[in-house]
Amino acid sequence: MVYRPAMKSIEWLGDKVQIIDQTRLPLEEVYIETDSYLEIADAIKKLRIRGAPAIGIAAGFGFALGARQFKGEQRAELDRQLDEVAALLLSTRPTAVNLSWALNRMRCVLNENPHRSVKEMKELLLDEAKKIQSEDIETCRRIGQHGSELVPERAGILTHCNTGALATGDYGTAQSIIVTAHERGKRVRVFADETRPLLQGARLTTWELMKRNIDVTLITDNTAAFVMKQGLVDLVVVGADRIARNGDVANKIGTYNLAVLAEKHKIPFYVAAPISSIDFQLSSGAGIPIEERDPKEVTEGFGKRIAPHGVHVYSPAFDITPHELVTSIITEHGITRPPYDKTIASLRSPTKV
Amino acid sequence: MVYRPAMKSIEWLGDKVQIIDQTRLPLEEVYIETDSYLEIADAIKKLRIRGAPAIGIAAGFGFALGARQFKGEQRAELDRQLDEVAALLLSTRPTAVNLSWALNRMRCVLNENPHRSVKEMKELLLDEAKKIQSEDIETCRRIGQHGSELVPERAGILTHCNTGALATGDYGTAQSIIVTAHERGKRVRVFADETRPLLQGARLTTWELMKRNIDVTLITDNTAAFVMKQGLVDLVVVGADRIARNGDVANKIGTYNLAVLAEKHKIPFYVAAPISSIDFQLSSGAGIPIEERDPKEVTEGFGKRIAPHGVHVYSPAFDITPHELVTSIITEHGITRPPYDKTIASLRSPTKV
Repeated sequence: MVYRPAMKSIEWLGDKVQIIDQTRLPLEEVYIETDSYLEIADAIKKLRIRGAPAIGIAAGFGFALGARQFKGEQRAELDRQLDEVAALLLSTRPTAVNLSWALNRMRCVLNENPHRSVKEMKELLLDEAKKIQSEDIETCRRIGQHGSELVPERAGILTHCNTGALATGDYGTAQSIIVTAHERGKRVRVFADETRPLLQGARLTTWELMKRNIDVTLITDNTAAFVMKQGLVDLVVVGADRIARNGDVANKIGTYNLAVLAEKHKIPFYVAAPISSIDFQLSSGAGIPIEERDPKEVTEGFGKRIAPHGVHVYSPAFDITPHELVTSIITEHGITRPPYDKTIASLRSPTKV
Repeated sequence: MVYRPAMKSIEWLGDKVQIIDQTRLPLEEVYIETDSYLEIADAIKKLRIRGAPAIGIAAGFGFALGARQFKGEQRAELDRQLDEVAALLLSTRPTAVNLSWALNRMRCVLNENPHRSVKEMKELLLDEAKKIQSEDIETCRRIGQHGSELVPERAGILTHCNTGALATGDYGTAQSIIVTAHERGKRVRVFADETRPLLQGARLTTWELMKRNIDVTLITDNTAAFVMKQGLVDLVVVGADRIARNGDVANKIGTYNLAVLAEKHKIPFYVAAPISSIDFQLSSGAGIPIEERDPKEVTEGFGKRIAPHGVHVYSPAFDITPHELVTSIITEHGITRPPYDKTIASLRSPTKV
């Protein structure tokens, strides 16, 4: 059985980038076509494209578009313009490390080819962006293959936010595990947290899983504990926006909540992410910057104001799950287990950054 | 300093009942005036009035209105009609025990006065409904006085759903503790869970606390764990819809979640409720019926559909928190501590039930 993606989050159309606007899903499938890095930056900032791996891919294409938009002939000027492009793209969102990882890869191409012409660089940079994407697709496929080994023949699986094809080049991270288990004939029942405030679970995860005919039940975030208590959850699997060297995980707000609940109910808690989401510079999660989002996403996120005017809101987009609550981390290289300070270091391959 | 209620959830206006429509808050203050028990039943069912104690009061007035709507002269016929009225009111919501508790009180008045005329009964039943309300107000005031002793001089307090004047006759249960602590000069900072799906925290709790100039910060439900992790929460206090004899607590979905998180972070977890919320017939929470709500409250609760058509939804309105996670239960009689099977039994006074 061939795995067919429901939808590509981002595609290169020969002379421009196409992005499916994830803020409009699931009710409308609206595509954005652009040849401007400014519009890519805007799309990342406004979450039209989201998910750590997909953000990395978008940044790669944004950088390549920045080069293609350059009208001059001088390499030095191109490089200077691309510094600005990279700075803008990097400023869009602070937490996912894939953004800086992808931009570093693009810069390396620039640095490794100091004598190539502007025209040649435009091609090389576009090739690198495509390569980031195609590698991510292969990475996600492998995450699914490795992780599906951890799924019992019949399994209730709880997941959070969206980690599907939409969040990556294709296949997804945590969701790739679910889909691969399903394709291998395992009977999975998924509980999808709606994931306030932006409802990526309600809007995107249910939509992707329903397209694949996978049994999915939507719950509000605060129902997860009660579902676990009833014995309906055999494992929790989530993605990651950044993983520190010691195994601490930054992921969508509410992930730490689930990790505590999983521990209490003796349920394994798995994190699925490409190695590009590991920040080998960071010794622990304490160093990960946490993005705070606009209060309006909480108070008027549904086209209707739901809280008094002037109310204080605290809306961090991510939280940190300490490594001791993480049963395993699944990457394209396999299943990584504690002690993470040892096992994560061994994942650092010389071909990556 | 005199405590001034922000708003009465329900009031008797001499010949009819006035209810503030809580589904329209905080943006609109719309009042419903009615002399029909059918409309009271409908208001409870549709959550225009909600909160276990307030539901009990509304049921009392509904019963009294049912008597006033009776046009005949025969006591036997009145009693038969009131059997139907009680059955309808009882069917509106299954979890809060205050509903059956209040209806039992009303029935007792009927049974204890078999020889009174229809006219006399109409007066006696209205008096009893008013008494249920005035007793609840006094009960809530005492809950606040007892519970505020548990609040440190400076305290971060996390609460869930709405337990304020709107949820009761006045003052509130958990919120009465917060407000009383504030009035006694303690510096409290409240984190209010928004409480999906119906957002009673975002809509009602913030609104009530802001009216009282109490420092309140709105968070999504899945942010609670991260706020606790940061050391911002000194205690959690919630209400209850039904408490079993062993101290198990049924309350708004997400309460059990908070209890697990509080245990993990070594934060005291308090439940505030009148004795009328204790079901002395029930040996444990396993026997408490859990209301499931309409999936549309999750998928299109904000005037906009947020999930694919046809998605499965599991939306229990309540969960059960096991007694071992409950630090204390605060009632009008004081602070009740484990072992609850002993201490709760001693709360059963002959004048109640």
